[in-house]
Amino acid sequence: MQSKIINRRDLAFVLYEMLNVEALTSRQHFGDHSRDTFDAALDIAQQIAEEHFATHNRKADLNEPTFDGERVRIIPEVGAALKVFCAAGLMAAAQDYELGGMQLPATVAQALFALFKSANVGTAGYPFLTVGNANLIKAYGSERQKLKYLPHLLSGRFFGTMCLSEPQAGSSLADIRTTAYPQPDGSHRIVGNKMWISGGDHELSENIIHLVLARIKGAPPGVKGISLFIVPKYLVNDNGSIGPRNDVVLAGLNHKMGYRGTTNCALNFGEAYDAGRGVGGAVGELVGEPHQGLTYMFHMMNEARIGVGMGAVMLGYTGYLHSLDYARTRPQGRLPGAKDPTASQVPIIQHSDVKRMLLAQKAYVEGGFALGLYAARLVDERNTGESEARREAGMLLDILTPVVKAWPSEWCLHANYLAIQIHGGYGYTRDYQPEQFYRDNRLNPIHEGTNGIQSLDLLGRKAAQNEGAALELLAARVLQTTVAASSSPATYLRGFGDQLAGAMRAAVETSAKLLRKAADGEIDLALANSAVYLEMMGHIVIAWIWLQQALVAAEKVESASGEERAFYCGKLQACRYFFNWELPKTQAQQRLLDSLDRTCLDMQDEWF
Amino acid sequence: MQSKIINRRDLAFVLYEMLNVEALTSRQHFGDHSRDTFDAALDIAQQIAEEHFATHNRKADLNEPTFDGERVRIIPEVGAALKVFCAAGLMAAAQDYELGGMQLPATVAQALFALFKSANVGTAGYPFLTVGNANLIKAYGSERQKLKYLPHLLSGRFFGTMCLSEPQAGSSLADIRTTAYPQPDGSHRIVGNKMWISGGDHELSENIIHLVLARIKGAPPGVKGISLFIVPKYLVNDNGSIGPRNDVVLAGLNHKMGYRGTTNCALNFGEAYDAGRGVGGAVGELVGEPHQGLTYMFHMMNEARIGVGMGAVMLGYTGYLHSLDYARTRPQGRLPGAKDPTASQVPIIQHSDVKRMLLAQKAYVEGGFALGLYAARLVDERNTGESEARREAGMLLDILTPVVKAWPSEWCLHANYLAIQIHGGYGYTRDYQPEQFYRDNRLNPIHEGTNGIQSLDLLGRKAAQNEGAALELLAARVLQTTVAASSSPATYLRGFGDQLAGAMRAAVETSAKLLRKAADGEIDLALANSAVYLEMMGHIVIAWIWLQQALVAAEKVESASGEERAFYCGKLQACRYFFNWELPKTQAQQRLLDSLDRTCLDMQDEWF
Repeated sequence: MQSKIINRRDLAFVLYEMLNVEALTSRQHFGDHSRDTFDAALDIAQQIAEEHFATHNRKADLNEPTFDGERVRIIPEVGAALKVFCAAGLMAAAQDYELGGMQLPATVAQALFALFKSANVGTAGYPFLTVGNANLIKAYGSERQKLKYLPHLLSGRFFGTMCLSEPQAGSSLADIRTTAYPQPDGSHRIVGNKMWISGGDHELSENIIHLVLARIKGAPPGVKGISLFIVPKYLVNDNGSIGPRNDVVLAGLNHKMGYRGTTNCALNFGEAYDAGRGVGGAVGELVGEPHQGLTYMFHMMNEARIGVGMGAVMLGYTGYLHSLDYARTRPQGRLPGAKDPTASQVPIIQHSDVKRMLLAQKAYVEGGFALGLYAARLVDERNTGESEARREAGMLLDILTPVVKAWPSEWCLHANYLAIQIHGGYGYTRDYQPEQFYRDNRLNPIHEGTNGIQSLDLLGRKAAQNEGAALELLAARVLQTTVAASSSPATYLRGFGDQLAGAMRAAVETSAKLLRKAADGEIDLALANSAVYLEMMGHIVIAWIWLQQALVAAEKVESASGEERAFYCGKLQACRYFFNWELPKTQAQQRLLDSLDRTCLDMQDEWF
Repeated sequence: MQSKIINRRDLAFVLYEMLNVEALTSRQHFGDHSRDTFDAALDIAQQIAEEHFATHNRKADLNEPTFDGERVRIIPEVGAALKVFCAAGLMAAAQDYELGGMQLPATVAQALFALFKSANVGTAGYPFLTVGNANLIKAYGSERQKLKYLPHLLSGRFFGTMCLSEPQAGSSLADIRTTAYPQPDGSHRIVGNKMWISGGDHELSENIIHLVLARIKGAPPGVKGISLFIVPKYLVNDNGSIGPRNDVVLAGLNHKMGYRGTTNCALNFGEAYDAGRGVGGAVGELVGEPHQGLTYMFHMMNEARIGVGMGAVMLGYTGYLHSLDYARTRPQGRLPGAKDPTASQVPIIQHSDVKRMLLAQKAYVEGGFALGLYAARLVDERNTGESEARREAGMLLDILTPVVKAWPSEWCLHANYLAIQIHGGYGYTRDYQPEQFYRDNRLNPIHEGTNGIQSLDLLGRKAAQNEGAALELLAARVLQTTVAASSSPATYLRGFGDQLAGAMRAAVETSAKLLRKAADGEIDLALANSAVYLEMMGHIVIAWIWLQQALVAAEKVESASGEERAFYCGKLQACRYFFNWELPKTQAQQRLLDSLDRTCLDMQDEWF
């Protein structure tokens, strides 16, 4: 039976045929690796994901974590699965050998982690938060902090969190109030309330290492006065053993629509703080320099946002595979041209509208998957490439990040909508999985910066900075692909190339127009329709990703046969779908943006 | 505090300013009524909806019905609310006086019922199924059947269901297998399994009257051999008292993603049937003529589908009102042009992107609401108008029905998506209601004919029949509105009129092209992209509905002041939103349809 968490042929296509990840093995850093070692790691990951993660995905949804006032209760399968994951060394898959890691390219590690997201996004949340936490300490912590925390995080003995939001400060981190009081010993006492902390409390690991944004007493207002602290649930002794409980208390668990396997918490830091008596407060260690916390956090945010995007992709991907299987096995109705009521019903995959819903899903999820791995490939380039390539990879990664986060969270959620629809009434029941994927995926447009925030980041920051250099570079890369398409033996790909080049050029002109408006001081008007800008850019980027895939497929399909030929035909048809059905949507978006439409900006509160 | 189930000013606008429902009171049938009696009925309904229905909406979601092997258990608030509803005579609100009804116009009754849908769509399910059931018996039952069942259904002593689908026959009713065995006494014994029966079992009423599609033994295959039967849970004695239990057994409750307040059941009819011994089988009474069951069912389907569309609208509507309230009271961030971090945070309604999400919701839900009531107004015209007006109203209703069902189920579900998004992380929790509305609303694209089925109904049947007469009539009405717009003092409405006229004309040409293809025998190709056709027509129809509203608002806004002026400005801005942001989407759709795109049709199973 085909796996319902991944199409390995597609994964191999993206890694080896589109992104040529094997070429990385010629770099010293990855010199011990080969396609065989990559595949072996992926095989192990897939096996663990299917046998230990997918198996309790529904159970975790039906039995969300509870808090009895003392401890958080989670079904035992979660902890058991994570033990297997950690024992296989996967927590450190992307880390260097010196940290006990496998030193895999980020591209392969991203693919490997993706398998756990499609198998069980809730349980997968814990290790991925922990990896993000460890990467932040690795990048900005002192040598002592690294020694003290990294080995335990990367072995899975400790888990980690990121504590940014507060009840009154969600999107607006400038308004956080959590305060760090300096102590004579150089440590700080942290006092404040944090909200939406994924993995904020549980008994799955020996300790939980919180990375907390707080203002050092007397710091400047706004984002320039935010610092970053390590605040463990239990203090850690120098020999790594667990010390006394820190003043971090679970205020409550949030009860969510989905993603229920991951605890999401309100945490109180320093409830017992009494400055006068000099007691209480959560002991925190400053990371790096004071007031640089948000900068540090944002340096890591790129990777976290790629991770969120990949989570959205993989929920879409598994839903697609579930609905594909259903469509192949469910007989219902007959084709419009064949009305003999005594003839057998056909499998619904034969109905054109069901093909549409499958093809749309394929285009969204395989497009998003290839984009996510392309972004991870940029991480590899930025980390191990030649210097000019590093710089360009960094710029591309920067401008693509909002797209990588937001596009899948919208379109792969829509893929889940379509997976439900293909299942008909059954899809609306909890006997089938797509309804859970749909609920789980609804988180992704919200967290790690709402899609509205992403759109402001893209238009107001990424497209604007360095006089539009990153956008120019992106456009150059896109046009490079369209030039390649213009000499493709497949004439329809030439047409797609022209179509994409036109869309990209129009987007660049529109961007310039909007940014001129902003420079002229009309920033509210320039940014008013940023959500549409993000949608437009997202569809252009995905069209580009599809054209890249199609160019490879067109080259190989002629000499291929059997299943291989069918696979390449599928890639070409999905590309056709995207160019015929999806990319044309950007024209109306571009015209709207170009008109500097004021409809939303001008709307008044009292008119609603 | 403003109601969160309806904006009564909007309701009054649609009824009295757009649809001029008061004019109906000059017709004999509605001669006792006036705007005062309409408003009084709406007041009572709103009060009951808010005090008895909205109050247990979340509780019913968190405590779905259970089956202990003997009885279905439902939280007591559901039965209590329905008792109040029935005691107020609302079950018969739309019925004639002779049936104990209020003889309200269908337009007013639809508006009245809508209030219960936004307050609690699950609990509202029972009476609306019962009304549909009663209307079918009223239209096609014998005098004896009417006497026997109608009074008890319309008083709420009995509730009703519709039993169409079977596990192997959902969309494809041609394939139902439930069999009716004729008995010497003229009755039938029904044997078979029915699936997805809303309200199929419960203890809320004294009896449940099932209307069951079945094949009389030996009937022709396909849809031409389907008959309709009344099959009560308990047989009913001639004096109306409850007789013995019929052979109808609950096989199980479906566990749904949402809409949990309404039981949804698998029912077994005639488990005990033994033809040889002449025992068992569910006693059923044939309705009307043999083999006409599907025709009868489809006559009623128009109204059921309008009901589903209105359910989708009202879930969108209440979500909109919830998110509007949240946006007005939640402070977060500052406007792009004002970056002083010590300034107070602004209510999020001031952010352009939040205005966009509110305005989009307003455009979807008020547009859908006005469309649903416009359709109900056509019902009134068909029932009580002059003969030519009746005929035309019937034709318009016929062609609009798939749009009225499908468009809100897509776009008002999207409204719920936006309501969640405005709430940010809070919107993803069960502490706020939009996540439930989103889950509840996800049913609507599926039931009463999936949206895929609706699209085939629209293009393959409604647009085609009588040589396109219904489509021609619809286009004529749309163009009539655009002509009115062309002389509007508001010049932008003239532009919108031109835009709509262009879209409508293009749609008519494309329809003709597709239908010629079908007539040429290429029916699979002609219908391949019917889903897009439905989307395009839906947006054109809603644009038309908005232009109608805007023409009224533009006329009144100039002399209005205060809240009234603000209300009309809101209508005009929502219309602007729809024409600037939404209607342009139809251009790409029209081009795709016009190209007779084969992408989906040509896709092969093995390519996925």
